[in-house]
Amino acid sequence: MATNDQHGENSPYFDGWKSYDKDPFHPTRNPHGVIQMGLAENQLSFDLVEEWIKKNPKASICTSEGIKLFRDIANFQDYHGLPEFRKGVARFMGKARGNRVSFDPERIVMAGGATGANETVMFCLADPGDAFLVPSPYYPAFLRDLRWRTGVQLIPITCKTSDNFQISIEALQQAYENAKGENVNVKGLILTNPSNPLGTTLDRETLRSIVSFTNSHNLHFVSDEIYAGTVFATPGFVSVAEILEAEKHFNRDLIHIVYSLSKDMGFPGFRVGIIYSYNDAVVSCARKMSSFSLVSSQTQHLLALMLSDDDFVDRFLAESSERLGKRHKLFTGGLEQLNIKCLKSNAGLFCWMDLRPLLKEPTFDAEMSLWRLIINDVKLNVSPGSSFECHEPGWFRVCFANMDDETVEIALSRIRRFVGKENPKTKQNDDGNDKAQKKTKQRSWQKNLQLSFSKRNTMYDENIMVALSPHSPIPRSPLVLARN
Amino acid sequence: MATNDQHGENSPYFDGWKSYDKDPFHPTRNPHGVIQMGLAENQLSFDLVEEWIKKNPKASICTSEGIKLFRDIANFQDYHGLPEFRKGVARFMGKARGNRVSFDPERIVMAGGATGANETVMFCLADPGDAFLVPSPYYPAFLRDLRWRTGVQLIPITCKTSDNFQISIEALQQAYENAKGENVNVKGLILTNPSNPLGTTLDRETLRSIVSFTNSHNLHFVSDEIYAGTVFATPGFVSVAEILEAEKHFNRDLIHIVYSLSKDMGFPGFRVGIIYSYNDAVVSCARKMSSFSLVSSQTQHLLALMLSDDDFVDRFLAESSERLGKRHKLFTGGLEQLNIKCLKSNAGLFCWMDLRPLLKEPTFDAEMSLWRLIINDVKLNVSPGSSFECHEPGWFRVCFANMDDETVEIALSRIRRFVGKENPKTKQNDDGNDKAQKKTKQRSWQKNLQLSFSKRNTMYDENIMVALSPHSPIPRSPLVLARN
Repeated sequence: MATNDQHGENSPYFDGWKSYDKDPFHPTRNPHGVIQMGLAENQLSFDLVEEWIKKNPKASICTSEGIKLFRDIANFQDYHGLPEFRKGVARFMGKARGNRVSFDPERIVMAGGATGANETVMFCLADPGDAFLVPSPYYPAFLRDLRWRTGVQLIPITCKTSDNFQISIEALQQAYENAKGENVNVKGLILTNPSNPLGTTLDRETLRSIVSFTNSHNLHFVSDEIYAGTVFATPGFVSVAEILEAEKHFNRDLIHIVYSLSKDMGFPGFRVGIIYSYNDAVVSCARKMSSFSLVSSQTQHLLALMLSDDDFVDRFLAESSERLGKRHKLFTGGLEQLNIKCLKSNAGLFCWMDLRPLLKEPTFDAEMSLWRLIINDVKLNVSPGSSFECHEPGWFRVCFANMDDETVEIALSRIRRFVGKENPKTKQNDDGNDKAQKKTKQRSWQKNLQLSFSKRNTMYDENIMVALSPHSPIPRSPLVLARN
Repeated sequence: MATNDQHGENSPYFDGWKSYDKDPFHPTRNPHGVIQMGLAENQLSFDLVEEWIKKNPKASICTSEGIKLFRDIANFQDYHGLPEFRKGVARFMGKARGNRVSFDPERIVMAGGATGANETVMFCLADPGDAFLVPSPYYPAFLRDLRWRTGVQLIPITCKTSDNFQISIEALQQAYENAKGENVNVKGLILTNPSNPLGTTLDRETLRSIVSFTNSHNLHFVSDEIYAGTVFATPGFVSVAEILEAEKHFNRDLIHIVYSLSKDMGFPGFRVGIIYSYNDAVVSCARKMSSFSLVSSQTQHLLALMLSDDDFVDRFLAESSERLGKRHKLFTGGLEQLNIKCLKSNAGLFCWMDLRPLLKEPTFDAEMSLWRLIINDVKLNVSPGSSFECHEPGWFRVCFANMDDETVEIALSRIRRFVGKENPKTKQNDDGNDKAQKKTKQRSWQKNLQLSFSKRNTMYDENIMVALSPHSPIPRSPLVLARN
């Protein structure tokens, strides 16, 4: 295993991270650096959390108000988790789904983030060689999470541009029949809803059809709902839990939800992954497996209190949704002014940007060329559709919630320059040599694409990047922090 | 996997936990309950940690002094870990080994406790069906950690009572040859040093021979050193790192250390497992796998500062060692007065108690009968040797560092009554019916063994348990906490 390549870390998705890692943007210290738009982080509502923490020193075992529980918590290693933590998480899961469904704390199983939760579910449900269907485009690290150590195969179900990338039951049926025809033992279907990378939610009828289809073929259905609380516009999110609630006849033993606090709360560092299965055997098995990746009891304790505070949670979810909506509008609105469209979306921390008109030709090679140009010259780390197994070239996932408004504006101004539409405002900030540069700047992207890679970096830097003015400091990037 | 039995949770080791769980001892609320002596927890030096925390509020992201780092830490998900955390852990590992060796922070890889670390090492080094040699007696949960999800086989190397359970190279050679003869692909050897359950350390020459043997047969050697900092008496602990330091000719690519802060610091709830490999490919692979079980960044941040405080760490390790030594002496000394011997030991949070003279016959059935009597009637959750794959019946692991002195005394008084040696001191605490009970109490253990199980519980309770007087409160058990 130390030598196989199933980890998937060589995909472009990770390449982009590496580029960012080498030259990370900072408004003052490195204003020409790469802006990280490949990281689906939610940084918009930390002030609310910080305010709560200041008001609740008892929630920490490292304050004078909370330290009397230190030894009990430091010693706590029961794989069921702190009961208050499970209760808090179950309650939060309900609230993040509009309180239309409730969750049983006894079914809350811990894992190491959604990463660990997804792997654990696979270990529980499939033997090596078994397969899971997954609608494409899908989260690239599924290759690592679902497949690497479990030996499970992933079979993509192609979602078409013409359907706005919505999964169709026909495509699902086709993928299932094809796999069966090749004697593959299909154990289930997994999908992320709200979708990563699309930022869309499944409508109730489609979701119901998926439950019905998987149920009728005795397939497991794993619903990865880690973006449940990021919905910022209509139509709202419908959880698979609501389908089960509405129609009692479905076989619940085949339904499993993966959840996490990394996206909805913005705590990826805390490694809170949750498996919520309606199947008792899976709950029991996953709980045994959770010994490999329990949530730190220090973190469980903090979250137990935070997530049990109804007023805080209600306010946080409402405010977070509003801020995400505003940010989404700011970014996609800016793109629209440049005639760049995104798939209409209502959730997530990213949008699915349509750069098909910018492709030299409709191929994945052209997508890769465009992507490398965006990374190396425009200095935005976005993620190409091919890394999400998208069937059609020209789509890119762009994250917008891991930065402040100023950085979004810088990113937009870089894109503006790239597509050749100068913004009069930013022009004022340009240094000397203005006339000489102007001609170069207004070259179309196609010409840029034809430049040799070795020349491009320097040239683009000289022409474009010096024009960017410093902005107010943004939070230090975790990846920068890691490399100090 | 949800249906196989490789998890090993049905072993007596876990049964004992369940018995405790149903009826946990509490000095005032449940003075007749089962005393947990099956849990290798280190609760003796928490006051030092608490004192440090009070003095260092900045170490927490949930204090007014530390909150400005909250968002960076909550967002931090780099699988390399916080650089300060890795540095702190590397430094602590050196100190816990008397500063005779140093560790490179770049080789520190995180995992979910030693549980996760051990599994990760197996995933890195072996394919399903491959085997690892492991000297017996060994930690029962190795079955889960090393074997369950990896498909790796474990081949015990029997350590003999006549050698004081020290591993012999002859036995190692024999086990290796036997496995090869059966066409088993042996990939390496894993052992816990200081030993769990023995509480002994490998002497330098033996350790050197093991490195030499594994090296010469191109076998990996995984040294699980999670008890490195628990040594309380001579001879001191020799880490495999010291062997490599002394003799540069060994092939380091075959050497891997597993570490944790669960035992030496007493933080099992924090789930800090460490893989320290001298092999670059293993470091790289294990780090990729650590995505499944990273340490919570909240916890990393706290420990980064705590473990980098040299004065604190020096004092903690010295004081912890002294307190463990005192506790060991108190408990084993008490047993000696009852003519119960333990294997001579110098480390660990337990002793290896020799109850061979109390066996009805030298069989594992007799060991199980004795064990059930100890659990159900003496109400001590100790762990039978058979659950550690010990080759000879009559040995029991008894943990002594997860309770206060008063509870140790109660445990000793229960054992005293069980083996029929009344202590005049505790006699004063007996309630009425004194004469009537005395005869029953002084029955030998052999007679007790002949009582039917259904009768025993009641009878023993009436006769013995009511005699125990309440003691000052001890820390609430984590398992009690879990069930509230």
